[in-house]
Amino acid sequence: MASGRMEFHAQTIMQHANFAYALPYDTEMEEVRDPSHYDRPTKSLILLHGLTGTDTDWLYGGIAQQLAYQYNLAVFMPTTGNSFYLDRGYPGGNYASYIGEELPDFINKVFGFCESRENTLIGGLSMGGYGSIHVSLAFPERFSGCIALSSALTIKAAEERLKMEGLLGEKTIAREDFAGKDEEQPKSPAAADIDPVRDILPLGLVLEVYGGASKLVGTDKDPEAQYLKLKAAGVDIPKIYMAIGTDDSLLEVNRDFAAFLEKEGADYIYEEGPGKHDWFFWNEYVERGLKSLL
Amino acid sequence: MASGRMEFHAQTIMQHANFAYALPYDTEMEEVRDPSHYDRPTKSLILLHGLTGTDTDWLYGGIAQQLAYQYNLAVFMPTTGNSFYLDRGYPGGNYASYIGEELPDFINKVFGFCESRENTLIGGLSMGGYGSIHVSLAFPERFSGCIALSSALTIKAAEERLKMEGLLGEKTIAREDFAGKDEEQPKSPAAADIDPVRDILPLGLVLEVYGGASKLVGTDKDPEAQYLKLKAAGVDIPKIYMAIGTDDSLLEVNRDFAAFLEKEGADYIYEEGPGKHDWFFWNEYVERGLKSLL
Amino acid sequence: MASGRMEFHAQTIMQHANFAYALPYDTEMEEVRDPSHYDRPTKSLILLHGLTGTDTDWLYGGIAQQLAYQYNLAVFMPTTGNSFYLDRGYPGGNYASYIGEELPDFINKVFGFCESRENTLIGGLSMGGYGSIHVSLAFPERFSGCIALSSALTIKAAEERLKMEGLLGEKTIAREDFAGKDEEQPKSPAAADIDPVRDILPLGLVLEVYGGASKLVGTDKDPEAQYLKLKAAGVDIPKIYMAIGTDDSLLEVNRDFAAFLEKEGADYIYEEGPGKHDWFFWNEYVERGLKSLL
Amino acid sequence: MASGRMEFHAQTIMQHANFAYALPYDTEMEEVRDPSHYDRPTKSLILLHGLTGTDTDWLYGGIAQQLAYQYNLAVFMPTTGNSFYLDRGYPGGNYASYIGEELPDFINKVFGFCESRENTLIGGLSMGGYGSIHVSLAFPERFSGCIALSSALTIKAAEERLKMEGLLGEKTIAREDFAGKDEEQPKSPAAADIDPVRDILPLGLVLEVYGGASKLVGTDKDPEAQYLKLKAAGVDIPKIYMAIGTDDSLLEVNRDFAAFLEKEGADYIYEEGPGKHDWFFWNEYVERGLKSLL
Repeated sequence: MASGRMEFHAQTIMQHANFAYALPYDTEMEEVRDPSHYDRPTKSLILLHGLTGTDTDWLYGGIAQQLAYQYNLAVFMPTTGNSFYLDRGYPGGNYASYIGEELPDFINKVFGFCESRENTLIGGLSMGGYGSIHVSLAFPERFSGCIALSSALTIKAAEERLKMEGLLGEKTIAREDFAGKDEEQPKSPAAADIDPVRDILPLGLVLEVYGGASKLVGTDKDPEAQYLKLKAAGVDIPKIYMAIGTDDSLLEVNRDFAAFLEKEGADYIYEEGPGKHDWFFWNEYVERGLKSLL
Repeated sequence: MASGRMEFHAQTIMQHANFAYALPYDTEMEEVRDPSHYDRPTKSLILLHGLTGTDTDWLYGGIAQQLAYQYNLAVFMPTTGNSFYLDRGYPGGNYASYIGEELPDFINKVFGFCESRENTLIGGLSMGGYGSIHVSLAFPERFSGCIALSSALTIKAAEERLKMEGLLGEKTIAREDFAGKDEEQPKSPAAADIDPVRDILPLGLVLEVYGGASKLVGTDKDPEAQYLKLKAAGVDIPKIYMAIGTDDSLLEVNRDFAAFLEKEGADYIYEEGPGKHDWFFWNEYVERGLKSLL
Repeated sequence: MASGRMEFHAQTIMQHANFAYALPYDTEMEEVRDPSHYDRPTKSLILLHGLTGTDTDWLYGGIAQQLAYQYNLAVFMPTTGNSFYLDRGYPGGNYASYIGEELPDFINKVFGFCESRENTLIGGLSMGGYGSIHVSLAFPERFSGCIALSSALTIKAAEERLKMEGLLGEKTIAREDFAGKDEEQPKSPAAADIDPVRDILPLGLVLEVYGGASKLVGTDKDPEAQYLKLKAAGVDIPKIYMAIGTDDSLLEVNRDFAAFLEKEGADYIYEEGPGKHDWFFWNEYVERGLKSLL
Repeated sequence: MASGRMEFHAQTIMQHANFAYALPYDTEMEEVRDPSHYDRPTKSLILLHGLTGTDTDWLYGGIAQQLAYQYNLAVFMPTTGNSFYLDRGYPGGNYASYIGEELPDFINKVFGFCESRENTLIGGLSMGGYGSIHVSLAFPERFSGCIALSSALTIKAAEERLKMEGLLGEKTIAREDFAGKDEEQPKSPAAADIDPVRDILPLGLVLEVYGGASKLVGTDKDPEAQYLKLKAAGVDIPKIYMAIGTDDSLLEVNRDFAAFLEKEGADYIYEEGPGKHDWFFWNEYVERGLKSLL
């Protein structure tokens, strides 16, 4: 194994960006359950964290290092804060382009990995599950597959909320007036019976992420619209693996997207299992996803 | 020395926040030029990075570790990206409160440092120079001094620019329309003859940082207004050390703020010296600032 | 959670020593399976790596961060290379004293943890399993319990080997002559049918670790002798939890030590389970050990 | 810049070895004083720490990151503890081979650097100054130059000490008997009027590093002997830059080695300057060394 953290200057997000990595060098083959993964070249996996997370989440809380040597994967774990991995359209604010283009290019330049679509996967949990779907559909020529865990597929709810607040497209809210709108701390998705958007996302963050958009549903921030556009263009679409815990407040929105993929005859796998919005679920299902896609 | 990086869940910015640190434990006194610093308790210094920077800048590029053992300082180096260290007024977007309250409270809980105003300083470079002035004036009960290097005192220029673009207060710009407004990459402050706001800050970032404000000058984002408010209230104001290189595009705005402090009879020190917007200047003048304030 | 790595100057090993840590601050209680662990003060756990390992092993490969928040533990993961965590008797070579005294003292000074015997545990895997037994018996006033996984209880085999080579006590081997003695790379304990000492430990390392000792069995490097000495002195002995996989080449030596503890009427727990010398076993059984000792 | 730390399994030292690195990617050319360094390919520099140091010393205490972007260098900072970077002749104890062969090979495999002798330099301070001379002369086909700062050229003194203690070659000292031989903590080289070997190196460490050797002077641990052997063989010898502070207790041994190089007509540079055994000297003279060799 070779593991660690690196930082570099990323143009697309105008920041010294941190990422963690775990690389399958010098693997002790006795510890590998399925040695056949070493009969092929090392593949690359970009793993995205959830809301409130950072680059070390998958390395410290998750089993990224085990994934690297068990599955012969070069795993890269970037962070762009709570950006939802979306482009904001101005220099230094393009988080999707960072994950989908600049980071793989940098990885290829420095490490030689992410050298082909066939050998490059992306995955993530919660906000990172949405991010992995969005980025793989935004850069379908870069990724052959996507592992979306407990995905925050909340684009419709976000649009409804902005509409409800009278903030869709037309104008933003003056910072001075936030106090009344957004009093208490957001809850965790692990809490039962909550509305993922109303209760998890502060209104200010919703505005920051989607600011000024006159609509969200049907745009390139909406995975269904992204998928239909690629399908119409006859583009080779990354294979999507989805998984969600039956005790997760995001269950319904994941079922909805799976139903869409089914209707469209997409190449996808959808799994539900007992579990909540936590590492016990993600560490089990990220392996199931890899077994399906590798 | 004890050095490293830590991450923890910060409520005010709704993130697993990274910070670097250098702590003056087990100092070899032969290497200390002025041992008298060890006749007093260890003091705490929060050091802020500039635009595009991260938590390790002062540790890798700067001389944070030398500052820690030469001056008997517990140095903490946080990051909040390109936020300008300002509160955005919604849960998870309050960067000034993170630097000025939550981080010192966490440091005190975990390490016991930042235990008193007298023993706590803040400093920074460029965006972090502005941040160190803003945060020390926003939380004057927390910090006894501030070291502001090559400070991005750009609040007036930011207001002018928003006005010029017709974006002050009233409305935000639709993300779709950015293309025309903000084509090329921002320049570095190290480049000669540039307008710090027009050329360095992408319009989208300006909007994100100040979004929706009906004015900036005279508000709590304007250090002059912050200062006057504290003076009127008879509050004990942190002592301010300022330094700027004579080849720095931010020279004029720093001279202006120094003139304001002079006019108000503030307790401050202002220094100019040959130099640009780079580590050669910051590593020299952060020491000069410490010698003035300790 | 607060996680990271720190380095500091350790006198006992004359080095800037690295350790990793995971601290249970700001735990999201929804994710904790047994919240009763938070009805008591945070306890401290020093976790030791195996031969060839380093400070990040338990953080990257193991589940240290999960242990920290699931069990309300401040987990510290030091490294002293391949020292077997033994004192070598000269300044800068005292690895047991580092783990058992200097490190807990430093942790207490910096973080306030390791504040009492009752609240301090030690554990480890393989070489670190032996280390956790040796250090807890060498400093019984510091640790109330020990979690020894797949422990390299190889002191008898080491003595036999040194005797066999004619190297016990009297003299060391000239470095020039090693070539003939120790040709190929040592094997991994994960390999089947190997002699843990002959095949895993290079002769040079055995000499370095035990160099010059006229005997090993019955000395303070021998856990049985350590135990008997404490028992005779009527000292309060740390509770020992042992676990070993039935496919581990170290099975027999662990059974032998468990039989010794049984014969002596020690306060101990011994478990065997299906498994090899790998993280799948250690991550499962470190939790079983904690459930037994907490 | 791309900076960080990595760990990997190093066979020659049988450890998960940590190293820090600073790589000159995306350099802001305005900040580079001599842009001509970017007219050539990036060169590689392996930088070694001193006694008691670790991999981050040159990154946190030293100016490794500035060296990387000012001189277009890929800087790698390994650690092998207090080994003096010497081979011990048994598997897992070969520190010179790690620094001179396995690490450059790994760097080349992972990063593509250290691709040629011409583009690879080595340097270090104190123990690492000796190490950089020893390793570059042990692997002259790998390194075109060496920057040896405040070098611990103590091989003669070490032999004298072992002779004085009656420990040269014949036998090692029983660990039990150390107490009398080596009571107090070694001093720092920064202290005035000390004997570098008698006062700095614990006897146990001397034995560990040189254990069992029947002589040291004239062997491959003696840089003069290494140099003469290469000269006799007509091998292309790396260019040596040496620097030492006039207040450094290692001044005389550095003068002696410089006199030897002069006598042999070696391609070398020797500089003395005001200074002690500290980072103020090393950070100034590592740049002077680079200017001489690049």
